[in-house]
Amino acid sequence: MTDRFTPTARTTLKRLPKRAEYDRAAIYNILDEGFVCHVGFAVDGRPFVIPTGYARVEDSLYIHGSAASRMLKAIEGGIEVAVTVTLVDGLVLARSAFHHSMNYRSVMVFGRADVVEDPEEKMEALRALTEHIVPGRWAEVRWPDENEMKATLVLRLVINEVSAKVRTGGPIDDEADYALDVWAGEIPLRTFAADPVADQRMEPGIEPPPYVWNYTRTAERSKRP
Amino acid sequence: MTDRFTPTARTTLKRLPKRAEYDRAAIYNILDEGFVCHVGFAVDGRPFVIPTGYARVEDSLYIHGSAASRMLKAIEGGIEVAVTVTLVDGLVLARSAFHHSMNYRSVMVFGRADVVEDPEEKMEALRALTEHIVPGRWAEVRWPDENEMKATLVLRLVINEVSAKVRTGGPIDDEADYALDVWAGEIPLRTFAADPVADQRMEPGIEPPPYVWNYTRTAERSKRP
Repeated sequence: MTDRFTPTARTTLKRLPKRAEYDRAAIYNILDEGFVCHVGFAVDGRPFVIPTGYARVEDSLYIHGSAASRMLKAIEGGIEVAVTVTLVDGLVLARSAFHHSMNYRSVMVFGRADVVEDPEEKMEALRALTEHIVPGRWAEVRWPDENEMKATLVLRLVINEVSAKVRTGGPIDDEADYALDVWAGEIPLRTFAADPVADQRMEPGIEPPPYVWNYTRTAERSKRP
Repeated sequence: MTDRFTPTARTTLKRLPKRAEYDRAAIYNILDEGFVCHVGFAVDGRPFVIPTGYARVEDSLYIHGSAASRMLKAIEGGIEVAVTVTLVDGLVLARSAFHHSMNYRSVMVFGRADVVEDPEEKMEALRALTEHIVPGRWAEVRWPDENEMKATLVLRLVINEVSAKVRTGGPIDDEADYALDVWAGEIPLRTFAADPVADQRMEPGIEPPPYVWNYTRTAERSKRP
């Protein structure tokens, strides 16, 4: 396994190539911090983009069923997809309107998504999806039974043709604009988990477990302010 | 103008139709709270999904240039797109793995995106993009000059074929599972703006304006905890 993905025609950034990232660890860090992807596919040449949960297991991306249902109604077997994960880190305010930007980390994976048929791989994918979104959850819940397994659709996309695009730092203004009397900088944006809300039908005495109370996407970024 | 959009083959939800929303005000509220969309399009039948900023002006969605550049290299004139905006409101933890879900609000707009050529409309779109992402900013910054206008690409998508999908509330478990000794409920997720970070080359004495200090996407949801 190489540490760097090979750029292809689709993953070579035409615009601002310095923001491109092909390093495997960097790409996997972004995929592991996010948990919602946007799945794009074409039916009769017309595009669709559907948000859904995902999880990475080694070099595979598993995509949860709801996104798949429309695709699979239209097309039997595998389908060409573009899967994009975007984390927005901040708004970049420059002195000119033109140089306004955002700080973000995004990954786009291209490839053929296939239905996971093997029951063992499918169960493992469902475990990964649950654990990726709420680490610690799988051990506590009732696992899928045979009917639920049949009713769930999981797609596998091998991570091979992929690139990330990353912007960090402050604004870059035109030299003349630095003299303007305008505040410039970054408004950092963060996601945090508010206090958990118990289900109304909760049995008395069941308290939220630590992985719910302390829920965070990353130790550093999602800390409560 | 009607208050409700008419469902089409593409915007009729096949799965969980009770989550569908065609009300104009509800759809526009989602579009106005978000500020990053995922633009899907197909080139030679192969899908791409690119994140970018957007703004709504009445019944048009304006999409910022970076997303457009690859499309427009491939295809002259208008292009069929699917534009999706997704707001994730929380993680829904059920007693069974199968019934785990997310609370979210998403909008998918289908249509032909056209390049905005008219300079007045283009300037108005750039104003809307700036003001949508940071309200109050346009009045303070240097506006685009002629060269910057030429270097900026803006696409217009008329909002006509559109639907929203919304999930709210707690988990819905199988009746037998309510007896399980498992915490269930929602982990609400919120986005907030951390303290602004001034550009290193800021002139002394320029303080962040109120619209930067008090930045929030919505009065209710993005408040600091």
